[in-house]
Amino acid sequence: MTALAPALLNPRRIALVGASADPTRLTARAQIYLRKHGFDGALYPVNPRAETILGERAYPSIASIPGPVDLAYLLLATEHVEGVIADVAAKGIPVAAILADGFAEAGPEGVARQERLLATARAAGVRILGPNSMGLVNVNGRSACSVNAALEAESLPAGRLALVSQSGSMLGAIMARGAARGLGFSHLISTGNEADLTASEIAGLLVDDPDTDAILLFLEAIRRADLLAEAARRAHAAGKPIIAFKLGRSSFGAELANSHTGALAGSDAAADAFFRANGIARVTMIEALLESPALFIGRRPLAAPKRAVSVMTTTGGGGAMAVDALGVAGIETRAPHAVAVEGLKAAGLPHHGRMIDVTLAGTRADKVQAAMAALSADPDTDLALSVIGSSAQFRPADAVAGLVGAAKAGHGKPIAAFLVPQADVSLRMLGEAGIPAFRTPESCADAIRAFLDWQAPRAGPDTGGIAHALPARPDEADARRLFAALGLDSGVAIFAAPDAVPDGLRYPVALKILSPDLAHKTEVGGVALNIPDAAALRAEAAAMAARVVAKAPGATLTGFLAQPMAKGLAEAILGYRRDPESGPVVLVGAGGVMAELHRDTALRCAPVGLDEAHAMITEVKGLKPLAGWRGLPKGDLDALARAIVAVSRLAALPDIAEAEINPLIIHAEGQGVTVADAWVVRA
Amino acid sequence: MTALAPALLNPRRIALVGASADPTRLTARAQIYLRKHGFDGALYPVNPRAETILGERAYPSIASIPGPVDLAYLLLATEHVEGVIADVAAKGIPVAAILADGFAEAGPEGVARQERLLATARAAGVRILGPNSMGLVNVNGRSACSVNAALEAESLPAGRLALVSQSGSMLGAIMARGAARGLGFSHLISTGNEADLTASEIAGLLVDDPDTDAILLFLEAIRRADLLAEAARRAHAAGKPIIAFKLGRSSFGAELANSHTGALAGSDAAADAFFRANGIARVTMIEALLESPALFIGRRPLAAPKRAVSVMTTTGGGGAMAVDALGVAGIETRAPHAVAVEGLKAAGLPHHGRMIDVTLAGTRADKVQAAMAALSADPDTDLALSVIGSSAQFRPADAVAGLVGAAKAGHGKPIAAFLVPQADVSLRMLGEAGIPAFRTPESCADAIRAFLDWQAPRAGPDTGGIAHALPARPDEADARRLFAALGLDSGVAIFAAPDAVPDGLRYPVALKILSPDLAHKTEVGGVALNIPDAAALRAEAAAMAARVVAKAPGATLTGFLAQPMAKGLAEAILGYRRDPESGPVVLVGAGGVMAELHRDTALRCAPVGLDEAHAMITEVKGLKPLAGWRGLPKGDLDALARAIVAVSRLAALPDIAEAEINPLIIHAEGQGVTVADAWVVRA
Repeated sequence: MTALAPALLNPRRIALVGASADPTRLTARAQIYLRKHGFDGALYPVNPRAETILGERAYPSIASIPGPVDLAYLLLATEHVEGVIADVAAKGIPVAAILADGFAEAGPEGVARQERLLATARAAGVRILGPNSMGLVNVNGRSACSVNAALEAESLPAGRLALVSQSGSMLGAIMARGAARGLGFSHLISTGNEADLTASEIAGLLVDDPDTDAILLFLEAIRRADLLAEAARRAHAAGKPIIAFKLGRSSFGAELANSHTGALAGSDAAADAFFRANGIARVTMIEALLESPALFIGRRPLAAPKRAVSVMTTTGGGGAMAVDALGVAGIETRAPHAVAVEGLKAAGLPHHGRMIDVTLAGTRADKVQAAMAALSADPDTDLALSVIGSSAQFRPADAVAGLVGAAKAGHGKPIAAFLVPQADVSLRMLGEAGIPAFRTPESCADAIRAFLDWQAPRAGPDTGGIAHALPARPDEADARRLFAALGLDSGVAIFAAPDAVPDGLRYPVALKILSPDLAHKTEVGGVALNIPDAAALRAEAAAMAARVVAKAPGATLTGFLAQPMAKGLAEAILGYRRDPESGPVVLVGAGGVMAELHRDTALRCAPVGLDEAHAMITEVKGLKPLAGWRGLPKGDLDALARAIVAVSRLAALPDIAEAEINPLIIHAEGQGVTVADAWVVRA
Repeated sequence: MTALAPALLNPRRIALVGASADPTRLTARAQIYLRKHGFDGALYPVNPRAETILGERAYPSIASIPGPVDLAYLLLATEHVEGVIADVAAKGIPVAAILADGFAEAGPEGVARQERLLATARAAGVRILGPNSMGLVNVNGRSACSVNAALEAESLPAGRLALVSQSGSMLGAIMARGAARGLGFSHLISTGNEADLTASEIAGLLVDDPDTDAILLFLEAIRRADLLAEAARRAHAAGKPIIAFKLGRSSFGAELANSHTGALAGSDAAADAFFRANGIARVTMIEALLESPALFIGRRPLAAPKRAVSVMTTTGGGGAMAVDALGVAGIETRAPHAVAVEGLKAAGLPHHGRMIDVTLAGTRADKVQAAMAALSADPDTDLALSVIGSSAQFRPADAVAGLVGAAKAGHGKPIAAFLVPQADVSLRMLGEAGIPAFRTPESCADAIRAFLDWQAPRAGPDTGGIAHALPARPDEADARRLFAALGLDSGVAIFAAPDAVPDGLRYPVALKILSPDLAHKTEVGGVALNIPDAAALRAEAAAMAARVVAKAPGATLTGFLAQPMAKGLAEAILGYRRDPESGPVVLVGAGGVMAELHRDTALRCAPVGLDEAHAMITEVKGLKPLAGWRGLPKGDLDALARAIVAVSRLAALPDIAEAEINPLIIHAEGQGVTVADAWVVRA
């Protein structure tokens, strides 16, 4: 642990700067909650206008506090925050949490204010949590240093889940929902605007926290993707899952996450790719964030998930509902394998069809335990799900006993439960036993889907050296040279003037004008096709230059590009982009109008290796014909995969913001691909 | 009401046939629950082996019961059920509910047993609920005539929702979840296998029930779509919403719904179309089935939904979560219109961006009420959603007071609430006040989506007379004649032999062999293209006949079809099918490989009118280029719409099971469409 970690995760000496003596005020709450929940460290309310605050001695200034302080929670109004950072630093306090809003989330003025604050803090050597932070809670350490109203609860749910939330209010909401379910927390930390400390960095601290088994993230934006990736790699090594719920799945939500916390909008697909590449599980339903950790804790990502589960049920309708929700999530409920059938027979349980319907056997613990053992031995499925009907409501101890027994026996395969009726006591018992328990079929399916999608952090392949020297404003020739340096050379000829047409071209050719200023060459007459010979090429180049000068008089013309005409089986689009939140991503899509209409693309964090490139190709529906679907002629998908790998190597070049090949012509099997158009944008 | 309705909905004299004297047995439960929940009608346990049962006088036979009986609940073993139907009939009991399973859900033998049972009941004039029925509950009438363990609850939640469930266990689960939420029921009815009485027919009875405001259906299959459509039309007239949750959204779920209750599998898209056409709202999340009725009750389907809502929140993160979930469901959260801004200003509330963030104003009832009034006046949105944070947990009365006030004021626009923390008391208070209240952003979005998708029952257009005479085994010429009778004549020539080629053909033509036996003509050499003149056509016809005879010696050849070669802008597929559950449906899709890969189709109940046909075309992404997208040449979408209408008229012909035109060639704007291939299958 760094010195930061104990100050943030287990502060024992806390200064509440700007604490109010009026218990009805928001700024009084931290002190009230700290005391209410039994904080037994040193508490220093700082307020120059009071001798005592809420019965405790108050200090007129930070400097007047005796002895060292771990954490200062600044409860001051927005305009007074920056001014006390110097005092915090002078006192040697490593971290200041800041409640005030009015910073980056509040328009350009707020952004400037936040930048000043950060500069001041950096200069002073103080780390900042917030601004706009609801504070932080160490449940086991009884330091409820937060103004979140959820701390009005009589007691806080202690446990081994750590929650880091960019939304302060969600911190309380998730804790309260957990408390009702027997799901408890080690830490709850509100990071607010993340001017300095990010959820990413704090996740890294929590990897080393001995009280934490799983790290839950409620994210509006990914900030410091590098730190999150590093935290995730270390979490994987430590066997601690990181599970994220992230806003921005819809464009409206993305925009709001933006305005709410002042993050740059990142594309959701890039975030998805980032989580997957780094071994972070993503749930899409808020209840699954709470319900899924028990599924992940103590487990590793499956090397080759079958995307299939075994389902046992005491209720036909409830079981069918789970099977249907799983199916919508792309997970098959599979009838038991012969091995499992043997075990079920031995337990005297019926087994026809996909579901094991034990309505008659009911909830006898020994039967349920035997059935779960049998299903855990099924080599065809990834998980055994028990769907429990009315017994979960009226005989909770009976209903869960078999599952608890099976979990204790530890058959290797994860088990989980979906409780069909209102079954609060059973949910709590299962939660306390560490068995994943779901109250809706939909969150059950979402959590299981997230578990099966979960992968070990990927070690991106070595990008190798890339010889390139891109001018400040590249034209297509520069883009072609860059892609050639990556191994994608489609044999173009570059020449400066009509009379400089090189020898040895394979005719007919296409001709294009070169210019860093012309993104759409066709519109200014800058493209000509099917030019039959050198004489025609010279003539066309001269005519083209004249046309373009007439239509785009301001454009700098840098020469000409000629390329043999090529016709393949199909076209693809290959793209690269440095996502502002998630970092470098590579994209492949089918070419043409239909693919654009269907947004038929696959995206990954860059760089990728060949296997991942092939997996991307498989995801794109419009490329399926090239794999021989319906007897159609096969395309050179190996060459396409190599091209994806090549483009993804751009991740090694931080000066490149975006690049695209569109179209990439795909020839028949064994005959390669041709770059037909390309561009690149510098960062 | 028919005589059936009082017997089923409010039985006052109930015979429990096969009631057990052993209170631990399933067959004792109905009597126990009836008494537990205060049934004060006449109860007649029938059991020849006991004088008294559970302290009540028992009767040796149905015949020995004094006076009339409204309902017999048969608790007998499977093999004894059929035998007592005669006794039920002799006693003049109109309805027998049957608990036993082992009927249509249990393989071919069970199917036969169910068919015998139904025949016996029909002959005797007895209506049947079940078999495999968990019974029925009239909560207000205190007749808890069911074996569902959920009735072990101390009291049953009374209210104005009626639930009809094909799954017996879901009846109890939904009731229990409702009870925890302050959502109560008038009736809960388990229809089981629906050998006779269907959820469809019972929905019709509930339309006339004065204790019921909304009808909820938990469906594994649609049976008697005709009765459900009629019930839905009458429900619409009566202002009672019908809301359905139906299994089968995934193929695994569909298969299971099938095996579970013995229904024929129907396609989910057809079910969707059926619900929509008939004014039935469909939710896809089980909690939304409970949470959504308050949104529908007392309301009419919106004539022109804007698919936009206003969102007010006391928690930034919680509000953003709702906005994001709504966005994923295709619903925009819209910033307030000037009219609403005025109202918000008057109430002293801040309002920048999409959400109205009232974190500072908090939960003051007058502020919330004023804000909801302002948002209700917003002409740009369909609904006002209030997202409530921690106050919902700790100060429920405060948190809901403003909403209750706004609901009472009745501003016309629906209001709803999403409660972000664990907030059981607030949920119950809102439930009891009839205000739609959601505990997850996802079910909130699902319910609002269902409300905005809700349409008035559609009066299908008159199909008009269709002159057709289809042979038992139609060939393509018959299919072409049928489509011509519908108004889709593409000028084909039919001739019996190579020497019978008619005059006046517009060459070049395509030639096809005719045969009721050959679905894939190309494979047997039965298609030839681009035939330049009559001589070539005669020669090719002779050669084709020889080829086909050689390749398919058993096929009956019925002649030849010649058609002028046609080339259009694009191709479409037009299909018609009589879905076994949902009835006639018409489908349009883009033609070609890409459309097939993307399953790019739109489906509606047939027949459709021109407006609906145009709406279908708009849904198909692959047809977008024909509307002039990206400056592409426009296709004759009016002609395509007319073709959809024409094909949908097949709904008037019960002898047609399936028909398809594939491809339908779409020409440029104003130039029509050409049927290039067609087939039809008789029922």
